[in-house]
Amino acid sequence: MSFTLYSAWRATAPYRVRIGLRLKGVDYAYSALDLIKGEQRERDYQAVNPQKLTPALDIGGGRVLTQSLSILEWLEETHPEPALLPQGALARQAVRAMALIIACDIHPLNNTRVGRKLHHMGIDQAGILEWTQGWIRDGFDALEPLVARYGQGWAFGDTPSIADCCLIPQVYSANRYQVDLSPWPAIRAVDERAKDHPAFQAAHPNNQPDAVPL
Amino acid sequence: MSFTLYSAWRATAPYRVRIGLRLKGVDYAYSALDLIKGEQRERDYQAVNPQKLTPALDIGGGRVLTQSLSILEWLEETHPEPALLPQGALARQAVRAMALIIACDIHPLNNTRVGRKLHHMGIDQAGILEWTQGWIRDGFDALEPLVARYGQGWAFGDTPSIADCCLIPQVYSANRYQVDLSPWPAIRAVDERAKDHPAFQAAHPNNQPDAVPL
Repeated sequence: MSFTLYSAWRATAPYRVRIGLRLKGVDYAYSALDLIKGEQRERDYQAVNPQKLTPALDIGGGRVLTQSLSILEWLEETHPEPALLPQGALARQAVRAMALIIACDIHPLNNTRVGRKLHHMGIDQAGILEWTQGWIRDGFDALEPLVARYGQGWAFGDTPSIADCCLIPQVYSANRYQVDLSPWPAIRAVDERAKDHPAFQAAHPNNQPDAVPL
Repeated sequence: MSFTLYSAWRATAPYRVRIGLRLKGVDYAYSALDLIKGEQRERDYQAVNPQKLTPALDIGGGRVLTQSLSILEWLEETHPEPALLPQGALARQAVRAMALIIACDIHPLNNTRVGRKLHHMGIDQAGILEWTQGWIRDGFDALEPLVARYGQGWAFGDTPSIADCCLIPQVYSANRYQVDLSPWPAIRAVDERAKDHPAFQAAHPNNQPDAVPL
């Protein structure tokens, strides 16, 4: 099987999938979309993902998978090792809840299309930045006690999980939007841990083919 | 085991869980929160769910589950019959992707706290309504071809799935916010189907203890 990931270097949803693919040791080709130029809305990409969002994972045979968390669940089912979900239904519930705090309660409010919409509604750049930072803070306030309770080096337990696939990109986004991370020491510790992990390093925005030096 | 669901009659995230519990035939007590009054932010509820969001499912023994999709996955693992996910990793990927289009790309932009935030940013009621309707339309545009492709009476296949647990509440919300559903006949057909199903009827907002006659 030959996989192609449609991605954008700084976008957090494809970043999650890159981490999952790297943790599983699954090779993939990288197809870059420039979200600032709006390439995700061009006809070529609409044929890949009619929703005009990243990521999309083409797994061959005309099959394209969308929605980062659903792609990670599919990866977990089809490439079980190393496991990205723990044993036990309650443990899996906690990991998925942590991932969903990021995937539902933080990121959807802060992605490119929402910023564009707020701009069209007359909100200025300072207002959009405050909006973005506020949802990150609320979400991290919710996550911090969970990471402190369940984490043993990673967000849950002592191995990377789907929660880390979501958390590390969200910390990257928080840094990008100048959120002071000092209120969340447990989250910061996981982020530090990830900096030394080859899969997280390989998936980092700066190491993507479409990265733009800042 | 004795379950208690923290819910609000019109909120779509607890509505998803009510459908799942009813489909599985799992009994539960109902604890109502008045989101307009802000009861989800009061101290008593913060002890249940520090994130101050609905739903939360207390399953006894001091264990409280949060995040609707993670609760539904937990229900599926602990109460496998009737199945709310199909056989086959690709089929499950599609069902989860449909659920996530609603849970990530529509609902988080339209819930109570976001409306409150937009109001504080000076957006008037007409602007908030247009915002809400716009995200529903974008999401339904993405869902319609998937339901048309995969649905055989329900959103995916011929039995209710986690996708329907998300879709039916989102259609309810679309009606509440005066979105004309005529562009999405496949979605409308599933909604019609659900009106005749006892589990969906029992989970409907109008049939909750805290329903307010409109």
